[in-house]
Amino acid sequence: MLENMPIHGGQVRQVMKRFPHAPKPFIDLSTGISPYEYPLAPLDVAVLTRLPEAADEEALLAAATTAYGVPNAGMIVAGPGTQLLIALLPLALKAEKVVIFGPTYSGHEQAWRNAGVGVSIVTDLQAFRAAAGRAGTVYVVCNPNNPDGRRLPVEILLELSDRCATSGGWLVVDEAYADFDHESAASSFPRAGLLVLRSFGKTYGLPGVRLGFLIASDGTADRLRSMMGDWAVSALALSAGRQALSDQEWLNSTKGRLERDAKRLVNLLKGSGLVVKGNTLLFCLVSLNEAASLWTFLCERGIVTRAFPERPTELRFGLPRDSASWDRLERALHDWSEIAK
Amino acid sequence: MLENMPIHGGQVRQVMKRFPHAPKPFIDLSTGISPYEYPLAPLDVAVLTRLPEAADEEALLAAATTAYGVPNAGMIVAGPGTQLLIALLPLALKAEKVVIFGPTYSGHEQAWRNAGVGVSIVTDLQAFRAAAGRAGTVYVVCNPNNPDGRRLPVEILLELSDRCATSGGWLVVDEAYADFDHESAASSFPRAGLLVLRSFGKTYGLPGVRLGFLIASDGTADRLRSMMGDWAVSALALSAGRQALSDQEWLNSTKGRLERDAKRLVNLLKGSGLVVKGNTLLFCLVSLNEAASLWTFLCERGIVTRAFPERPTELRFGLPRDSASWDRLERALHDWSEIAK
Repeated sequence: MLENMPIHGGQVRQVMKRFPHAPKPFIDLSTGISPYEYPLAPLDVAVLTRLPEAADEEALLAAATTAYGVPNAGMIVAGPGTQLLIALLPLALKAEKVVIFGPTYSGHEQAWRNAGVGVSIVTDLQAFRAAAGRAGTVYVVCNPNNPDGRRLPVEILLELSDRCATSGGWLVVDEAYADFDHESAASSFPRAGLLVLRSFGKTYGLPGVRLGFLIASDGTADRLRSMMGDWAVSALALSAGRQALSDQEWLNSTKGRLERDAKRLVNLLKGSGLVVKGNTLLFCLVSLNEAASLWTFLCERGIVTRAFPERPTELRFGLPRDSASWDRLERALHDWSEIAK
Repeated sequence: MLENMPIHGGQVRQVMKRFPHAPKPFIDLSTGISPYEYPLAPLDVAVLTRLPEAADEEALLAAATTAYGVPNAGMIVAGPGTQLLIALLPLALKAEKVVIFGPTYSGHEQAWRNAGVGVSIVTDLQAFRAAAGRAGTVYVVCNPNNPDGRRLPVEILLELSDRCATSGGWLVVDEAYADFDHESAASSFPRAGLLVLRSFGKTYGLPGVRLGFLIASDGTADRLRSMMGDWAVSALALSAGRQALSDQEWLNSTKGRLERDAKRLVNLLKGSGLVVKGNTLLFCLVSLNEAASLWTFLCERGIVTRAFPERPTELRFGLPRDSASWDRLERALHDWSEIAK
């Protein structure tokens, strides 16, 4: 069963084909994407008819600089989604080895392996800290971590990055889920050896836009910008990013809604007898021996969660978008807990 | 003067600042982008609120497969603009050296140099053909060439790529301007050693969308797809590409309009005493000792053409979008030819 699951979240149509008799519409809880999309101004098609200009990108970077607390726009590179920036890192950093604080988002491991660089996954924090600071080595931490919401204090990250800088290595901190957190390493620049990734689509509920950022201060941002060349980001992403990243008020009020939703989700899962391993405002990870059965049980009810072929006792739940979806999830989990009794 | 020109076309706002007294609106002839944008269906914002799914990309690739005459979709990779695919080539091909048939679009040279690979530019066809076929070497041809419209017959390209394949090298053919040509190397797959790039935005007048393709058959397409990871292409690009690439009728009728426009542009430039070095349906290159003066002369009249800092006797003209722009260009060139007499 598990080997037939989609590798990533967000592949609902694949699941629908496998469960043709499930009630429609399918509810996609397989991603950690906010159900509240930023209300974009209507797209003016005219912006698509010309190449994005330098001034368009400058306006986006100015908004991102403020939103992420980065000292200046020269330290930020915008790309068509964080995933592609991750894929480009092996070109920007000539690394001999990569150590990832795992388990975590698989895109990092895949990018380095594809580039022919050896990767170790270290799951113990003490071992990870002890390993940090070898020359030519890239260390990767997702903070907060996906899928388990694990967080490292920024002071630990900065200590690690300083050791990396001293030894001629790098620390990559993927802050894809940090927008709603108090702490971020993004405001600690300039800082040699540190690279921070930020994602747009998850927080603003617009992953189809494809927009992500890399922040770095020791020439890495310039190098990556030069590598991507002009026009890496679409006109729509430039406009959407500029609008949304300038709107702190929307972010604050959305955070309030998500806090209520996240609490409701955690309570619902716990109330259904599931063990919650960790969460952020955008997803919640549960642990159970019957994860594969629960995944199938929910799919049969038109609810798609995220299973992990490599960790068959975990299931990640994103947030339902509306009250009908909440109702169906609550009913399904109630039925599951009745069976499990 | 020349050192202050934008490096690429499409930076009209930079030019506007330098010529604040020029008549508005500025007419952007600095790019080789069709003035006729494909009439997209209105964007449904809902497609932006979810991650693009595999089926979305499959639909795009099916349309591209037919449009470009490629045997099957597995040989095509979609990316967020050809420029970024070019930037990724050094990751996909472990090349020791690159030989470019130049002068041509600077993005190729820049991508390889950024990756630390040595680049030679060869301008003589016999010398380029003689150089082809060394192990570990990538050969690059833009066909038709930008900015001079120079074309190599596909049979020569295939002969070159076969020699590359035999010796363990690659031929990259950038067909960014081939959509209106009879000939393309894209239909010659499967073929070891050959990579073909196709661009979406120029032909369909929608460069802000950011969409481009790489076609290859010897595992390179798979490798690049795996490197980029999922979701490299935005939901808007997936939708726009699928719509436009399926519409052969629109392409044919647009070709007719562009043929008339291109002829008009060539006649206008020749009639103004300029020497036309070459053209495609989307741009025309002229050669004159006073290229820098003509560039400034036109900027002062609110008309932006493309000058080349490294080749100060050339100027490239894109197509005006409407009759008011044609009128202003005709008047400006008439005035120039009067002064030049």
